[in-house]
Amino acid sequence: MPTYDIAILITGDELLSGEISDSNTQTIAGILATQGYRLRCSLAVPDQEKEIVAALQYLIGHVQFIIVTGGLGLTGDDRTARAAARTLGQPLVVNDEALEMVHQWFVRHHRQMDPSSERQALLPQWAQPLPNPIGTAPGFRLQHDHCELFFLPGVPTEMRAMFQQSVLPVLQQKITGATPLQQRTFKIFGLSEPKIDRMIPYRKLPDGVEVAFALDYPLVLVKLKARGDDAEWRLDQAEALLLNDLGDAVMARDGETPEGNVGKLLISAGLTLSLAESCTGGLLSAMLTSQPGASAFLERAGITYADSAKMDWLKVPTLLLQQFGAVSENCARAMASGLRQATGTDLSLAITGIAGPDGGTEEKPVGTVFIALASAAGVHVQRYTFSGSRGQIQQMSATMALEWLRRFARQSIE
Amino acid sequence: MPTYDIAILITGDELLSGEISDSNTQTIAGILATQGYRLRCSLAVPDQEKEIVAALQYLIGHVQFIIVTGGLGLTGDDRTARAAARTLGQPLVVNDEALEMVHQWFVRHHRQMDPSSERQALLPQWAQPLPNPIGTAPGFRLQHDHCELFFLPGVPTEMRAMFQQSVLPVLQQKITGATPLQQRTFKIFGLSEPKIDRMIPYRKLPDGVEVAFALDYPLVLVKLKARGDDAEWRLDQAEALLLNDLGDAVMARDGETPEGNVGKLLISAGLTLSLAESCTGGLLSAMLTSQPGASAFLERAGITYADSAKMDWLKVPTLLLQQFGAVSENCARAMASGLRQATGTDLSLAITGIAGPDGGTEEKPVGTVFIALASAAGVHVQRYTFSGSRGQIQQMSATMALEWLRRFARQSIE
Repeated sequence: MPTYDIAILITGDELLSGEISDSNTQTIAGILATQGYRLRCSLAVPDQEKEIVAALQYLIGHVQFIIVTGGLGLTGDDRTARAAARTLGQPLVVNDEALEMVHQWFVRHHRQMDPSSERQALLPQWAQPLPNPIGTAPGFRLQHDHCELFFLPGVPTEMRAMFQQSVLPVLQQKITGATPLQQRTFKIFGLSEPKIDRMIPYRKLPDGVEVAFALDYPLVLVKLKARGDDAEWRLDQAEALLLNDLGDAVMARDGETPEGNVGKLLISAGLTLSLAESCTGGLLSAMLTSQPGASAFLERAGITYADSAKMDWLKVPTLLLQQFGAVSENCARAMASGLRQATGTDLSLAITGIAGPDGGTEEKPVGTVFIALASAAGVHVQRYTFSGSRGQIQQMSATMALEWLRRFARQSIE
Repeated sequence: MPTYDIAILITGDELLSGEISDSNTQTIAGILATQGYRLRCSLAVPDQEKEIVAALQYLIGHVQFIIVTGGLGLTGDDRTARAAARTLGQPLVVNDEALEMVHQWFVRHHRQMDPSSERQALLPQWAQPLPNPIGTAPGFRLQHDHCELFFLPGVPTEMRAMFQQSVLPVLQQKITGATPLQQRTFKIFGLSEPKIDRMIPYRKLPDGVEVAFALDYPLVLVKLKARGDDAEWRLDQAEALLLNDLGDAVMARDGETPEGNVGKLLISAGLTLSLAESCTGGLLSAMLTSQPGASAFLERAGITYADSAKMDWLKVPTLLLQQFGAVSENCARAMASGLRQATGTDLSLAITGIAGPDGGTEEKPVGTVFIALASAAGVHVQRYTFSGSRGQIQQMSATMALEWLRRFARQSIE
């Protein structure tokens, strides 16, 4: 763990009134993490001089580097430079270098400089201005005791560009001995967090490999983290141990998505697919087609809400619907096999169920879902009882269907 | 401005490593703002006992109410209860009431209680447990000097439910003299923010009514805000002025969604609908069916990726596909009218286009989208050129199609 600590201070009324959510912390935190730098805390305060001063005073005593975003613009609620000057006991003066930066922005954009824009060059006396490659407001850098402070605009694109250009190189020069964090994420479906936790061979994991959990409904994310020179090697060991027991349940890893992987698997396996969705209403189809190249395997999907659609497009017999109802094992089976006959695709998958909140009965409560998969090997059907909101039941049903497709495609590749 | 100050403390390594972005601050901040309460700051720290203790000590000295989220689960990185106990100098003990809450969760879910789940009932000695209506981990409440502390799980759905159920009523009882913020949101489609800004009659707006903008792609949200006794009256005035020019472009307001409103309009108008989606891949259908009751108007939807599907389900002539291609005005027209003939629904809407990132040509670049609507009055088709990522082009196409349906349904009701 490096000894230098970094803090982020975000200023802006709109963050504390719930109007927008802060994305700058995540941007900076992500860049710092890959470098192995330690982000000690992130603090958000309103655009009030008093609050910014109090926050700066607190942070100056606790960390070595402070990255402040927001409050450098032209409107009345931009008070960061004034607060910085007050905190550090410096007068606010027109900084000639900063003024030239503002001036150059107007020259580059072939616009007349507004006299009020000069206010953006009013900085604490000993500030070193930082160029803004996108907008008009320069950032600035200050030193105080053993603390280094960077002030950047709050606009995410400007903030990110200036962080990369003016802050990161300073950190890289000043922070030595940081060991970049290596990380691997496994996206697991069908097992609860406590169950996964019990399956992880903690005692066998190499030293310094940490395990962390996160939820991305309906997936559980397991992360392995390590630092240091041999981090890759230790993560390889840990991954092998983890996948030994959990490998089968991993639907995707790192930047992958379950739907993206299923698409790739179907293409590798040379399998074509057609879908019949009822209670998921197109969600599964939308997930698969959110990925480029879905037309290579997806022939068509029918969202067959009405019985007439099931009869017409999927050739479900009228008598079957009358006898068993649309939410039934028989109907799911007929939907999948009828669709496969009509389309000639290798696989036809059908989902029918009750997503709620209404429409449940004692025998078939809300959350009752049938999934059927028709292939050359015949039709396989299963009944599930999912819980949660309408959205969660739809999400769970679609992901379970993806899991069926994943297993089928993997088997046919092996 | 009320005198009671509130702070949020978010715990979680994944927030400070850039893996996820914090949404709990925005949720809580939004609810507090509508009540007129003042959120003084939001602080995020890692899942480390030392850091949580330091943050709690700092906040206890500065505010009257602290809402802590995260770190109440079962895994090793859940350290909030221990940190709270240490900060307040209380031992960590098994809380019988909390244990019963955990137990009841397993009873309700017909599951055997895992012995390790008991750890969720280990709370600081004087903690008052708070029920969790969704997950297993109870929250808790503590008092220290003049500060009131609430500890909630970090899972957003659980956090929100528990905040509403157990925290907000306490705040409402203890904080007097706050002037709730009244707010109205208008979700506008098809006009840019600067264009909307120019259409707002700022000078005519009643005193104390503020206008704010936010983006929820592809919608622009315009918010009117006011405080005080006659806030409702002033907002009525402002709303009338705003809607005078912008009314037509408002697809939804406040908690409504465009898809929810379109569904309701179709039901009111007694119109049935069938959809043929190509480049949107089921997104429009999934949006409409995310709302309960979609089966009252949606008869079916066909995601007709392959030409064979367009010919078979939508009766698009082979020659037409060969001559004009699937992304063409002629094909869109044939998809909509063929589907309407096949289904007998009042309306049939078709979308065909190139969502990218590949597949564009000079004549039909990525973003070229045709929308067609067939009704008893004939078929109307239009060509669009949307820009952005694959996801944005799909989103824009689906929302534009919703806008067509909204206009048609409104006209047929009038």
